Amino acid sequence: MERRRFLVKAGGALVAAGAAVAVDAPNVIAQPSFNWRLAHSFPPSADVLDGGAKRFARIVEEMTGGRLKIQVFAGGELIPAFGVFDAASQGTLDTFMSASYYWAGKEPATQWFTAMPFGMNAQTQYAWYYHGGGLQLWEETYAPFDLVPRPGISTGHQMGGWFKRKINGMADLKGLKFRIPGLGGKAYAKAGVTVVLTPGGEIFPALERGVIDGTEWVGPHDDTKFGLHKAAKYYYFPGWHEPGTTGEFAFSKKAYDKLPKDFQRILDYAAQATALNGLAEYETKNAIALEKLKAETKGKVEILQFPAEVVRGMRKLAAEVVKEEAEKTPIAKKVHASYTKFQALISDWADISEAPYHQLERKA
Amino acid sequence: MERRRFLVKAGGALVAAGAAVAVDAPNVIAQPSFNWRLAHSFPPSADVLDGGAKRFARIVEEMTGGRLKIQVFAGGELIPAFGVFDAASQGTLDTFMSASYYWAGKEPATQWFTAMPFGMNAQTQYAWYYHGGGLQLWEETYAPFDLVPRPGISTGHQMGGWFKRKINGMADLKGLKFRIPGLGGKAYAKAGVTVVLTPGGEIFPALERGVIDGTEWVGPHDDTKFGLHKAAKYYYFPGWHEPGTTGEFAFSKKAYDKLPKDFQRILDYAAQATALNGLAEYETKNAIALEKLKAETKGKVEILQFPAEVVRGMRKLAAEVVKEEAEKTPIAKKVHASYTKFQALISDWADISEAPYHQLERKA
Repeated sequence: MERRRFLVKAGGALVAAGAAVAVDAPNVIAQPSFNWRLAHSFPPSADVLDGGAKRFARIVEEMTGGRLKIQVFAGGELIPAFGVFDAASQGTLDTFMSASYYWAGKEPATQWFTAMPFGMNAQTQYAWYYHGGGLQLWEETYAPFDLVPRPGISTGHQMGGWFKRKINGMADLKGLKFRIPGLGGKAYAKAGVTVVLTPGGEIFPALERGVIDGTEWVGPHDDTKFGLHKAAKYYYFPGWHEPGTTGEFAFSKKAYDKLPKDFQRILDYAAQATALNGLAEYETKNAIALEKLKAETKGKVEILQFPAEVVRGMRKLAAEVVKEEAEKTPIAKKVHASYTKFQALISDWADISEAPYHQLERKA
Repeated sequence: MERRRFLVKAGGALVAAGAAVAVDAPNVIAQPSFNWRLAHSFPPSADVLDGGAKRFARIVEEMTGGRLKIQVFAGGELIPAFGVFDAASQGTLDTFMSASYYWAGKEPATQWFTAMPFGMNAQTQYAWYYHGGGLQLWEETYAPFDLVPRPGISTGHQMGGWFKRKINGMADLKGLKFRIPGLGGKAYAKAGVTVVLTPGGEIFPALERGVIDGTEWVGPHDDTKFGLHKAAKYYYFPGWHEPGTTGEFAFSKKAYDKLPKDFQRILDYAAQATALNGLAEYETKNAIALEKLKAETKGKVEILQFPAEVVRGMRKLAAEVVKEEAEKTPIAKKVHASYTKFQALISDWADISEAPYHQLERKA
């Protein structure tokens, strides 16, 4: 009887060396192995995101019985934090975890898949991705880059940020030096804010020394790890600029296409499971950090709601910014139309479900 | 050269027939196959739940490359709708999809894993399961029954239900014949409501003929499929009795233990992925159904908020009921303590994140 040797080449291509096949055991099948590399865009100190990338890798390994191993690198460890998109697009990186709005310079449409000012929250964004056509539009947006996107971990609702001075109205924003990227920053700029793009690692010293008057980052868990509560007194909510910031997984199409179908599906559903688990972790850790912050900074930190005038004013300016972005490319226009229509639909339902729930559970 | 035949026995045990092994291809491994049966507790007309069970089966099949096939049966098709727990507990059924509060008669602690009056919403429940110790407590609760539980699909926030008469205060509840099961029903009974347990299929005729004065079911999507809007005029929110009803998957421990480790993990994460996808589908379909209901029943159906007096009154009575349940067994007491503590923790965070979000996104 002749026999066959299976050799697995680097990169996972399967070749048969030798002569004719004689494996007649019906359930003995060839099982190629793969080693992938995942790079993400976050510092290791962003433990929910870094841990989420590691969880994703672990559960893929568990579900493939160790036959698809993914090595995880934090921002800058393997390639620069914001180099992951290009690396995977060119096929030199198998997969990455990031946030699609970082790629606004490549294609403005990418912004709607992460967070929009006065946009959707986490739960509603997942509804849009999976049942409102959002993921198909995301795939369409990433196809020219040879990337296959999947919704990732949501940070949940973000905080409005830290301010050294109290904000009583729109006039108080004029001339303020505030660190904020993206569309929120563009809206603030229209309000007369001097928008600064301080990198993560430099935010705390800049705020402490008064180089900036304020900054947004994420929420209580990540913000207090940066020590921002030691450099500014006023912590504002709601985070109108990012009400449900949702990350992404993306696969190099070249690497994804080489996988057997069952491994592709394992990646797809590992992303979906990691998304729910990560949001659950952020909700829990933000709640714990908020409780700790309140207990430890009594009289030092004030947690305040933006005045109605500021919310109204910023909503108007943010709408202008979003409209400008939507007009930049045909796909941005299409994504904006889908997002806006879905948000309006769900908001009517939220008004009689999720919204009154938040009053309901409080003792009144 | 000698060779080997692998035979897969019914039930999945793997045996080798023949002589010594000579499979020297390093990545050719034995792959047993399994055929499982899943029965759920819902009518096929509950399309999100029935479809969710089928999605779960499909993605398990996809992720295992067809080597774990799960045949799905709706409520009553294979075994009675509420016989699934016992069947899987005894090992005659591999897995089921249901809602753990149906098993309150076996163990009161089960109720906290589905929904509690004035309890948590979907997003917060998932946070509790995955990062607040909820799932471990659920596993502890199900261990004596030889069952392995996993959080399932959430219907999201439910509606308060359909009433033939307007409810202006607690006095209007007295003597009302209302169809509602579980703890919500027990709380209503304390308010003088005559609580009726009409089975799903009989609700519409009972409401139409005036045998009952009102009923709760799920939300706009499922309720309008039953035609309830054609039999009652007043549709009340919020669904204080079930603010985030979450279903379950459960595996027979006997069947689960027989699987290879990678298939066990595939089941675990398929449940997690199905949970997020199902909640997204409910949110979307409820929103669509609500829009349709409003458009088609103008002047015929009124969508109303329960008066504050009723919410306050029912909160007090529901708290009494929950306390009574928590005192029934040691594990119920433990689960109640964990649930209550977690809800309070997250509520403080929700007050400055999810709660203001729902005002934020509305034009004001």
